[in-house]
Amino acid sequence: MKFARIAITGVDGEEARLVVVQPEKRRVIDLATAWRLRLERRGATREAARRLATALFPASMSAAIALGEPFVEAAAEASAAPAEEAVRPLEGLRWLPPLDPPLIRDFTAFEQHVRNMAARQGGTIFPEFYQRPPYFKINPLGMIAPEAEVPWPHYTRHLDYELEIGLVIGKPGRNLLPEEALSHLFGVTILNDFSARDVQGPEMSSGFGPAKGKDFATALGPWIATCDEVALYDLSMVARVNGEEWSRGSTASLTWKIEELVAYAACGETLWPGELLGSGTVGTGSGAEHGRSLQPGDLVELEVSGLGLLRNRIGQPEPPGWLPKPRQASAAS
Amino acid sequence: MKFARIAITGVDGEEARLVVVQPEKRRVIDLATAWRLRLERRGATREAARRLATALFPASMSAAIALGEPFVEAAAEASAAPAEEAVRPLEGLRWLPPLDPPLIRDFTAFEQHVRNMAARQGGTIFPEFYQRPPYFKINPLGMIAPEAEVPWPHYTRHLDYELEIGLVIGKPGRNLLPEEALSHLFGVTILNDFSARDVQGPEMSSGFGPAKGKDFATALGPWIATCDEVALYDLSMVARVNGEEWSRGSTASLTWKIEELVAYAACGETLWPGELLGSGTVGTGSGAEHGRSLQPGDLVELEVSGLGLLRNRIGQPEPPGWLPKPRQASAAS
Repeated sequence: MKFARIAITGVDGEEARLVVVQPEKRRVIDLATAWRLRLERRGATREAARRLATALFPASMSAAIALGEPFVEAAAEASAAPAEEAVRPLEGLRWLPPLDPPLIRDFTAFEQHVRNMAARQGGTIFPEFYQRPPYFKINPLGMIAPEAEVPWPHYTRHLDYELEIGLVIGKPGRNLLPEEALSHLFGVTILNDFSARDVQGPEMSSGFGPAKGKDFATALGPWIATCDEVALYDLSMVARVNGEEWSRGSTASLTWKIEELVAYAACGETLWPGELLGSGTVGTGSGAEHGRSLQPGDLVELEVSGLGLLRNRIGQPEPPGWLPKPRQASAAS
Repeated sequence: MKFARIAITGVDGEEARLVVVQPEKRRVIDLATAWRLRLERRGATREAARRLATALFPASMSAAIALGEPFVEAAAEASAAPAEEAVRPLEGLRWLPPLDPPLIRDFTAFEQHVRNMAARQGGTIFPEFYQRPPYFKINPLGMIAPEAEVPWPHYTRHLDYELEIGLVIGKPGRNLLPEEALSHLFGVTILNDFSARDVQGPEMSSGFGPAKGKDFATALGPWIATCDEVALYDLSMVARVNGEEWSRGSTASLTWKIEELVAYAACGETLWPGELLGSGTVGTGSGAEHGRSLQPGDLVELEVSGLGLLRNRIGQPEPPGWLPKPRQASAAS
């Protein structure tokens, strides 16, 4: 199945609805509505049916995934022969990020990307890449939706995209082995880790890792495909800027395997449903690898086989804003 | 006021309750119970009173803080002359982390700590420290409670503590100026950023920042003191290990001021209620600065004026576990 979230306008403002996407039928099915109607047909009152349906299909995808098999089974039932009232055409939908993850770890798992970046800077791959799959954490509150405009923060002049896949955790786990890790995976989606290269560089050289260089915007979607729908190591990945192809790769070239990423994330930490792991950028999957950068108004499209098309337009730069005033080292240092 | 969370055993298992702590009276007040009783005295049915009270004082402190002034006002009313049924003695409480933050940024804002760490490694302070307040993000799902045992991950042999204060965001904000930033602060607590030094080092040298070196455990609490209760720049900070003082400092020595940390966090990103900012370690506030490390069974106590005592015992090392197998560089690199 393919899961997504859309926004509708309710009596108290915008609300998120979980949907199953059927791209071949050019439609989505509103799961809470479909389930409510099923319950009503079996004698539930409108109010009681609504209560149960929104508990099963809440606004939060992470909360839904945390229900485990009962959620997926009910979604399959609800979307099998949906009532007309629960169906919406693909056209004109207001997409939301398909997931509201409590945590995002963004790995770097493709050697070719790391090599290309190092070569651009006149260096070689940092040795730690070959020891453990490196990752940093992205602000999950900075997630933006498919079709949303990418904010251009006032502190950067060099915006870039990153073509990645996003791995969604399905059930709790701790200290997992790679051979059991894939059973903890719920599904896969497209991730665009927008980056401010001129800020990311100093942040990484400080040792603290990316922060303002990454957290202003991360796009996700349009949907999460469950693992049974995709060949994890045969996903073709393409990026286009204003219609021109800049990047092409495949999950076949992953240096660190998906089961290793999940197992490593679970080392000494408990993974929770709805957590998101980024694969890191596929080789050629960013402008920086080609010496190119994005401009205001650019249209960035990421396409992955079976996962749809994640499209975002780059916004206009924010007006100049406050930044910290540099300090002098104190006399003692 | 001083806010905390405790665990009680309900009919469906453990649940979190928001409390106001009155250390001078050696008691806490269960806010939902106190509010329910007030409503019942004014004619509400038990069920209706419970519904409203748990909506106002939910299990999530972040959700409560997001209610803004109505939450703080109701808490003040509820704890002013509480019914006996809502009062619990301090002794024997099962504390929870006082906050369930959606995001933790951990800054490094004390020059003396950075200088001490650099000196131990035979180096000097990294120049970026003086340009912007550096920070990394901690896994908020790895939070542990006051009095909880600190898990010792299988991948480390060198555990350390870090004596910090935690700053709790009270209301949304974006691109703030320092002079308005403090009005976005809800309160302050004690933070112990437990660290695996032998893992943190390679992670920071890779440029990706701390991950497994920090995310296995972060202790917080015991309570959050609202800003009106504390002199932000005159908090004395002490750490003891097995009763012996290892660290002593004060927020008076902050190089990057609290309003700068909040404003910088809000640069190009929206701050949300319940987010947590760590001050970073005060000078002398870790074992590493003294060439010392923790041992299994050690008792670590952090004490900050007005914020109470945050105490955790170090657990036994986990049995050996899986770690990624290092890779060879491919022929092309």
